[in-house]
Amino acid sequence: MSRRTRNILFIMCDQLRADHLSCYGHPKLHTPHIDALAARGVIFDNAYVQSPVCGPSRMSYYTGRYMHSHGVSWNFVPLKAGEMTIGDHLRPLGVRSVLVGKTHMRGDASGMSRLGIDPDSQVGVRIAECGFDPYERDDGIHPYSGHDPDPSYHRYLREHGFQGDNLWEEWANTVVDKDGTFRSGWYLRYSNLPARIPAEHSETAYTTGRAMDFMREAGDQPWLCHLSFIKPHWPYAAPAPYAGMYTPEDALPVVRSDEELRDPHPVYAAMTHHRVSRTFAQPGIRDAVMVGYMALVKQIDDEMGRLFAFMQERGLLENTMIVFCADHGDFLGDHWLGDKELFHQPVIRTPLIICDPDPRADATRGTRCQALVEAVDLAPTFLDVHGGNPVPHVMDGRSLRPWLFGKPPAQWRDIAVCECDYSFQDARIELQQPPIESWMRMAFDGRWKYVLCEGYRPMLFDLQSDPQELHDLGASEAPEHVDQRRRLHEALFQWARRPRQRVTVSDELIESTEVQARISENGILIGYADEADLVAQRKLFKPRYASHNPLVKETLDRLTREPYLAHAQEGTGA
Amino acid sequence: MSRRTRNILFIMCDQLRADHLSCYGHPKLHTPHIDALAARGVIFDNAYVQSPVCGPSRMSYYTGRYMHSHGVSWNFVPLKAGEMTIGDHLRPLGVRSVLVGKTHMRGDASGMSRLGIDPDSQVGVRIAECGFDPYERDDGIHPYSGHDPDPSYHRYLREHGFQGDNLWEEWANTVVDKDGTFRSGWYLRYSNLPARIPAEHSETAYTTGRAMDFMREAGDQPWLCHLSFIKPHWPYAAPAPYAGMYTPEDALPVVRSDEELRDPHPVYAAMTHHRVSRTFAQPGIRDAVMVGYMALVKQIDDEMGRLFAFMQERGLLENTMIVFCADHGDFLGDHWLGDKELFHQPVIRTPLIICDPDPRADATRGTRCQALVEAVDLAPTFLDVHGGNPVPHVMDGRSLRPWLFGKPPAQWRDIAVCECDYSFQDARIELQQPPIESWMRMAFDGRWKYVLCEGYRPMLFDLQSDPQELHDLGASEAPEHVDQRRRLHEALFQWARRPRQRVTVSDELIESTEVQARISENGILIGYADEADLVAQRKLFKPRYASHNPLVKETLDRLTREPYLAHAQEGTGA
Repeated sequence: MSRRTRNILFIMCDQLRADHLSCYGHPKLHTPHIDALAARGVIFDNAYVQSPVCGPSRMSYYTGRYMHSHGVSWNFVPLKAGEMTIGDHLRPLGVRSVLVGKTHMRGDASGMSRLGIDPDSQVGVRIAECGFDPYERDDGIHPYSGHDPDPSYHRYLREHGFQGDNLWEEWANTVVDKDGTFRSGWYLRYSNLPARIPAEHSETAYTTGRAMDFMREAGDQPWLCHLSFIKPHWPYAAPAPYAGMYTPEDALPVVRSDEELRDPHPVYAAMTHHRVSRTFAQPGIRDAVMVGYMALVKQIDDEMGRLFAFMQERGLLENTMIVFCADHGDFLGDHWLGDKELFHQPVIRTPLIICDPDPRADATRGTRCQALVEAVDLAPTFLDVHGGNPVPHVMDGRSLRPWLFGKPPAQWRDIAVCECDYSFQDARIELQQPPIESWMRMAFDGRWKYVLCEGYRPMLFDLQSDPQELHDLGASEAPEHVDQRRRLHEALFQWARRPRQRVTVSDELIESTEVQARISENGILIGYADEADLVAQRKLFKPRYASHNPLVKETLDRLTREPYLAHAQEGTGA
Repeated sequence: MSRRTRNILFIMCDQLRADHLSCYGHPKLHTPHIDALAARGVIFDNAYVQSPVCGPSRMSYYTGRYMHSHGVSWNFVPLKAGEMTIGDHLRPLGVRSVLVGKTHMRGDASGMSRLGIDPDSQVGVRIAECGFDPYERDDGIHPYSGHDPDPSYHRYLREHGFQGDNLWEEWANTVVDKDGTFRSGWYLRYSNLPARIPAEHSETAYTTGRAMDFMREAGDQPWLCHLSFIKPHWPYAAPAPYAGMYTPEDALPVVRSDEELRDPHPVYAAMTHHRVSRTFAQPGIRDAVMVGYMALVKQIDDEMGRLFAFMQERGLLENTMIVFCADHGDFLGDHWLGDKELFHQPVIRTPLIICDPDPRADATRGTRCQALVEAVDLAPTFLDVHGGNPVPHVMDGRSLRPWLFGKPPAQWRDIAVCECDYSFQDARIELQQPPIESWMRMAFDGRWKYVLCEGYRPMLFDLQSDPQELHDLGASEAPEHVDQRRRLHEALFQWARRPRQRVTVSDELIESTEVQARISENGILIGYADEADLVAQRKLFKPRYASHNPLVKETLDRLTREPYLAHAQEGTGA
């Protein structure tokens, strides 16, 4: 069989809800190209991210580690220099891992300085790019805010004749009202208006084109290309013709109930007070946003079509695993919330489609997998594809390839875990919580969703009887609810105490070594009573270690000669 | 007041039980010099280490972080490159931190290689020395086993006329039997015999001398000297005259009962099967070891006398905080165990004496402090002494200076936590546990000691009714015991889930920043409905951030002009 997986195209959308793809059930928003990918691969119906926030979620994808392990708890928190990412794991296997698009990563300048690493060195640049080699970095949004003030997207627009001081702001993020008035794409009310930028020069198209450039230039070295779209993340400004494709009637109905606001959980309540939540509750806002959001998704789907056709022409579909996923979803007004910082399904359940050209994956093409999978499973999957040994002492996730090959592992996880540090949010200020107490952690078993909130009562949702998550049972005294909370609380403890920082020694090394025997055979004689004891024990030695060092053998020989006497050399003390 | 603390002498003994100092109550072993230090400072009666094993415990002392945080779970596990130690924290404050003696640290070669750090560079050398600058490294024990094959102690012995291939083995670790026969100091049966090495050239004396050398040479820069003795760790070979000072009758009686071996906890049982435990149970072995152990402690006390007199002559007692502690204790046959890898008091309760010359500490001189303190409190204390801001996002411990100054903090910890990874022990092999499940964690509140063992029932001891810890209540169904186990189990969960890896952003920075306001003022406009919304919000801005970047102000000005129209420059798309 000629099909062999040698490359990985790791596509990530930002803030894309699973339910906004037609293969995940959206009734009006048709995404035929993504659906076609799914038909060639596997749809994971229960894929969860490790954090509802871009930065932490992405670091979990890149490291295969929970936020609790890698420590990046929000967007401005640098991944500490030394944390291994997928690029670091694949590099020794001869794989080139590149970034095309967004990562939302800030380099750990202080760590680099302490370790004497020049930020402009190859290692320094990788640290600032999440371990990827740079190819095209574009974090989108406002280019003043610590991002590259003149990203290559600006240079591209200039080359294509666009003019202005801040081309992103003035073209990609400016929309045109019906009367020709320019409006800022930041304003949610105008999300239904077309962006000034023509579709073919928009961020989504530009980024796709850069991935094609990479594939053209990649040569023979196996690669992992992390194609990371900024959209459909806000600003929700979509270009024509997408901006006009959908009406508010095409949108999924908003999911919220007045009951949610009666005696709400304090952290939830504080989040409904965030500006973005209040804005989404204003008349007309959600309708406008849904039009823009659907348009942006539709455009991504078209770009996927263009990209996959390009890859097919070049024979890349035959040897490239394609992963399509998102860093998290978007409340879009559901549950009286905007943006993303809680654990409801629209935010933490994300699309995950994997198409593996390996013939062993033929068994599952076009199927849906119901296993509880997590963002941390991607890095172990990539390592698996490239033939690396699993590194469970580093990565919290597990390879998904057994699922792709139709050979599910005998044991799999019972809960998905998602974490949120709201220290950086106004909710913390409103609640006057210290940062270290501004944490929430979710354990979800596919039916019961338990949320442990430091300093407050937990939340609990039963997705079987309440699939829309409108009834918080966190304070319910019904015995079943008390039991479920207790069970998931304990499951979260098991999760929390799992050792995750002994990253410098592998389980494999420990299991393959009789450490104590090795120590003895190295001449460190712990707990031996006397010569006879060592003589007896020595017969049981497998002297593979000591044999590396003839001095050790000589010493042991001397020490087991009874009595140890004549051969101690006679020197004289001063 | 002229007394001001500008230096820190951080003295650590290896494997020294608290109850083997007369100031901690040993009836026969008099340690007048250490007692005199205690009389000038504070004795901490409830000081606990974070692991019963050298390497992990030391890394907790050096980093101020639990084993769960720093990841070094046993002796051969390198501290990952990037973890900050006390040397890293003090260096920016102008303090030189040096190591004199043992650290039991292996450098993270793979991490350094990945980060492009030359192991021979200054940074590389520090990484291999736990963040200290090297002065005198001597990890003792067998110099073949990955340790320096020709340590400077060997060179010293050669210079003083000692002869041999392996001077440590042949002099420091060889004892002389009554008939003149040489015996190896490794054998426990001969621990009561004098070492060949004269006391003044023994490791303890040599290491003390090197600390004096450092103080002579240190100059004006404030320093932290980590004086780290190898003794009274095994081999228990003490030189004359110490070797002859004590008899087995002077030793504390062995603490063990037959009941402990009836229906024992499986992990405990496996540890009683370790060779060292079986050897300690043989007739005569403990008697011999106690003679050697007490002798080694007595020698350390005499060396402390020599050192403190030296410091007094040079006026160093006036400006140097002196800390005397241990990395853990030693079972010495108690509980049918040898060595150290469980959580009984003889192992995890360690001496901690702090003498701070600061006049504010005059209030507590000669007193005993009953607070539950931990090894992780030392690094924060040292940072405090040198005027550094607390770093609770990095260090798990807290400064002990308030206790020294007689101003106890309003809130203090409720439990001490100690962790043990027995992956590297024969117990794991006997129990056939995978490494990730070979963990035990203790929560001790001063009375109840709870031990959570992965895969097994917990242990529980009530030190009020059972101060010798002979009755494991881990399986007891008495309601009080069930309640205490549940309470400490939950306390351990609170401890385990505390975020400890967000080390690149401080709590202080988060608390001092209205992050969301800052984001808006930087031009990232999340959740604004329209121009009027931004106009209204903008009046509430404290435009300190935007003001750093005039472009942001211009953009915001333009975006709040209603309608945003005329100033968007007219370029033309390609």
